[in-house]
Amino acid sequence: MALSTMIYNHLPTTSQPIMNKLSKIHGLAHQQVVLDRPQTKTSNRVSSLTESLSHLLHLHLETPPRTNIHQINWNLYGEEKLSTPTTSPKEVIAQNWQDMHASSNWESLLDPLHPWLRREIIKYGEFAQATYDAFDFDSHSEYCGSCRYNRHKLFETLGLSGNGYKVSKYIYAMSHVNMPQWLERSKLAETWSKDSNWMGYVAVSDDEETRRIGRRDIVVAWRGTVAPTEWYEDLQRKLEPIGHGDAKAEHGFLSLYTSKKDSTRYNKSSASEQVMKEVTRLVELYREKGEEVSLTITGHSLGGALALLNAYEAASTIPNLPVSVISFGAPRVGNIAFRDELHQLGVKTLRVVIKQDVVPWMPGLVFNESLQKLEITGTLGWVYTHVGTELKLDVRSSPYLKRGLNWPGFHSLETYLHLVDGFVSTSSTFREEARRDVALVNKACDMLVDELRIPHCWYQLPNKGLVCNAHGRWVKPKRDPEDIPSPHMQENINVHALEAGMQTQDVLETLLSV
Amino acid sequence: MALSTMIYNHLPTTSQPIMNKLSKIHGLAHQQVVLDRPQTKTSNRVSSLTESLSHLLHLHLETPPRTNIHQINWNLYGEEKLSTPTTSPKEVIAQNWQDMHASSNWESLLDPLHPWLRREIIKYGEFAQATYDAFDFDSHSEYCGSCRYNRHKLFETLGLSGNGYKVSKYIYAMSHVNMPQWLERSKLAETWSKDSNWMGYVAVSDDEETRRIGRRDIVVAWRGTVAPTEWYEDLQRKLEPIGHGDAKAEHGFLSLYTSKKDSTRYNKSSASEQVMKEVTRLVELYREKGEEVSLTITGHSLGGALALLNAYEAASTIPNLPVSVISFGAPRVGNIAFRDELHQLGVKTLRVVIKQDVVPWMPGLVFNESLQKLEITGTLGWVYTHVGTELKLDVRSSPYLKRGLNWPGFHSLETYLHLVDGFVSTSSTFREEARRDVALVNKACDMLVDELRIPHCWYQLPNKGLVCNAHGRWVKPKRDPEDIPSPHMQENINVHALEAGMQTQDVLETLLSV
Repeated sequence: MALSTMIYNHLPTTSQPIMNKLSKIHGLAHQQVVLDRPQTKTSNRVSSLTESLSHLLHLHLETPPRTNIHQINWNLYGEEKLSTPTTSPKEVIAQNWQDMHASSNWESLLDPLHPWLRREIIKYGEFAQATYDAFDFDSHSEYCGSCRYNRHKLFETLGLSGNGYKVSKYIYAMSHVNMPQWLERSKLAETWSKDSNWMGYVAVSDDEETRRIGRRDIVVAWRGTVAPTEWYEDLQRKLEPIGHGDAKAEHGFLSLYTSKKDSTRYNKSSASEQVMKEVTRLVELYREKGEEVSLTITGHSLGGALALLNAYEAASTIPNLPVSVISFGAPRVGNIAFRDELHQLGVKTLRVVIKQDVVPWMPGLVFNESLQKLEITGTLGWVYTHVGTELKLDVRSSPYLKRGLNWPGFHSLETYLHLVDGFVSTSSTFREEARRDVALVNKACDMLVDELRIPHCWYQLPNKGLVCNAHGRWVKPKRDPEDIPSPHMQENINVHALEAGMQTQDVLETLLSV
Repeated sequence: MALSTMIYNHLPTTSQPIMNKLSKIHGLAHQQVVLDRPQTKTSNRVSSLTESLSHLLHLHLETPPRTNIHQINWNLYGEEKLSTPTTSPKEVIAQNWQDMHASSNWESLLDPLHPWLRREIIKYGEFAQATYDAFDFDSHSEYCGSCRYNRHKLFETLGLSGNGYKVSKYIYAMSHVNMPQWLERSKLAETWSKDSNWMGYVAVSDDEETRRIGRRDIVVAWRGTVAPTEWYEDLQRKLEPIGHGDAKAEHGFLSLYTSKKDSTRYNKSSASEQVMKEVTRLVELYREKGEEVSLTITGHSLGGALALLNAYEAASTIPNLPVSVISFGAPRVGNIAFRDELHQLGVKTLRVVIKQDVVPWMPGLVFNESLQKLEITGTLGWVYTHVGTELKLDVRSSPYLKRGLNWPGFHSLETYLHLVDGFVSTSSTFREEARRDVALVNKACDMLVDELRIPHCWYQLPNKGLVCNAHGRWVKPKRDPEDIPSPHMQENINVHALEAGMQTQDVLETLLSV
């Protein structure tokens, strides 16, 4: 795998001490690369450079020691813990929803983490996780790149029917923007779409959840990429203008968010247009009913980057809408002006970050897969900066997680959700009453200690989806007609819904019952 | 991965021309290694040596061209072929069973391949395949290394209930003989057995199948290893005496077959003792009833080696018992005297071999996993030789298989069964009426062309066997009590059966009903 030539930069804040630190890092880099060891191979130079760099940045990339944990009796764990509920009773947070939605930037709610906020963060994280769990990754499937279930079945099929939300629209993005490795494509000639990937969805709180959380909450969940190595390299070192001011965002993210083409089935309009049309429709619908409305956008990894672009657009377009972003393991997206404009627009961003995850350091670092190490990516050219408030987690805090370097594991969304569930404060140990099912961590990685006896990467279909037919032959079953994506149905429904003022779901149910 | 230092030798027959060829190979080897390129690295020398060697041996390791195939309309294939039966109606072969069982070494039955014999070869191959399909490979399972189902459910669970046989006994072998990588072991402290692996089973034809095939057929199926790289290296270059004559067999195979230890649960007696006790019991049981009895031993890879040792012992021990071996991709096992004694004992061996599979060249060649190439293994020290009649298959004959090197695919038993099903003669193309389900080939490898849309390595449990319990937690379910191995039950049954002259199954049913 060729090394990327992306830029390096680190600007978590603009305070002077950090700037000095940055200068020191670069000083060190040049010293080592140019002066100390001019004859060594690039990889050696970059490697030692990376070590120093990691150290200075407190990346904690070394194998962390197992510290400060309560001892677990694994036998008892098996017997007792497995018969307990995985969630706590839901509290009514209607009186405090603005706090949870960051009216004051989550001040005083993060360290220690307020239990109500913890539950809300996990709720939104599970919306993002659903975009992975339902995605058709099978390149031999004609539906590769789509969602395996229609939007009415999504939460129920994934065991999330208790979350109090209904999906109102699926979002598609062009899959062949300039970053060919980002999205999935079928190997087959005949597919549901040659051009698009399912990229997320819009959902809205039902009446009961609305009462509990004090407002009608519209959620947008953006799908990311699973392994960090899939897309680091494709990050291009090009910032493009967004909006009318100086704000700029990374070209690749922006391209994915805004690309469209008339000849496609699912991207005659861009992801941006699709999501904004639906959010606008829902805001108008519920505002007409006199309800208070909020927008919460979530995403993991690449999805976190799209969430930020989406938040920028929504806050710019829809007046007086409280917009927050809860992102997990998201990379940097834009320049300082982008961050400042988001701030001025009132967008509140909570960036959940695992200390050992490298993706939040992108663009700026690149992961060299063959060497299994980090490398910095060229000279400083543009300035990428993070946005919002950070909730920092540490894999070393959990007694359930293996020690040792594990890049995919550190970046996995399920690892994030596990650590949020166990987080009390930066100074305390893993929460003993944490109830989320620990086994979920290993769905798509290998992070759990052997004592738990949970196989790694266990989230898989029986026989990769093949079934034995009546003749004894193993075949790929036809997908349920109701689960086959259909852009026309989706368009019709929206037209109907807008015209008739009906709820989208009601219209679809009418259509399907014909 | 360190290179093995095993010996090389190639003696498919003892005819003079082959001996000359062998000398030439060795001459070439020395020339290249010692004289031509004394300064190059070992891997380079061995590599070029291997190329010449492969060429001389007609190993056909080069990427084979797609030749001589009938064109397939993949769309039609999908529509039509998937609605046809996977087997042909069974013919009554009672009058000809001795021919099928090699009374005349399968002369005139192999090229072209007699359809009745083809069906019998596949039947026995599927017995061997069952030892893989039912094996618990999960190192996080306390039952790792056992069979996942009890013997009464084995064929039914695997969709083989129509094969006309009943399993009468499971065979276990010591898992920590001198070759640590051969067998599977649980990572857990508490397991069903720290010492043993399920290594195969004994089955016997039921009355209906007995009528069809003209005799009561006892089958022994030996489990092998899945990937060739797992055990090449562990083959030791030591021949050990077997029996009272000059016959010698490879130390590792023999050790696996004969090891036992009083402190174990499943190997107080060796695999050899277990299988011989059961076979002897069955032979006596049916001979007392005046029936004609045959023994057919089958196995793939390592299992093929064990089959040969087992055949040697059975033919030496039980007088006048027709014994044949049908092996798939089996390595060489013993010296020339071993082969000659087997011949004198009247053991008939059909070795099914894929031209491109490297395992049948073992011991003698070793597969260097990191370099993905073959290397020869030191100087000639002992002489390993193949036994019996060869049925040679060619991956290039099947239009369903991908071109390109694929070591695991070339060695996979399902690839063997597919090619047997399609084999007509060495001079003709793949059999168009072949009915076996082509999808099976990809169960544990990646050999099928993309047009078939069959995922690779698709044979897998849903969520690796985890299930969601009533509390919403993903757990490893308890194994059905009836599927938990129990040496005592097995011992008791045999004692009872022998004492009371009852059928084993009847006794077990009595015990289970208590």
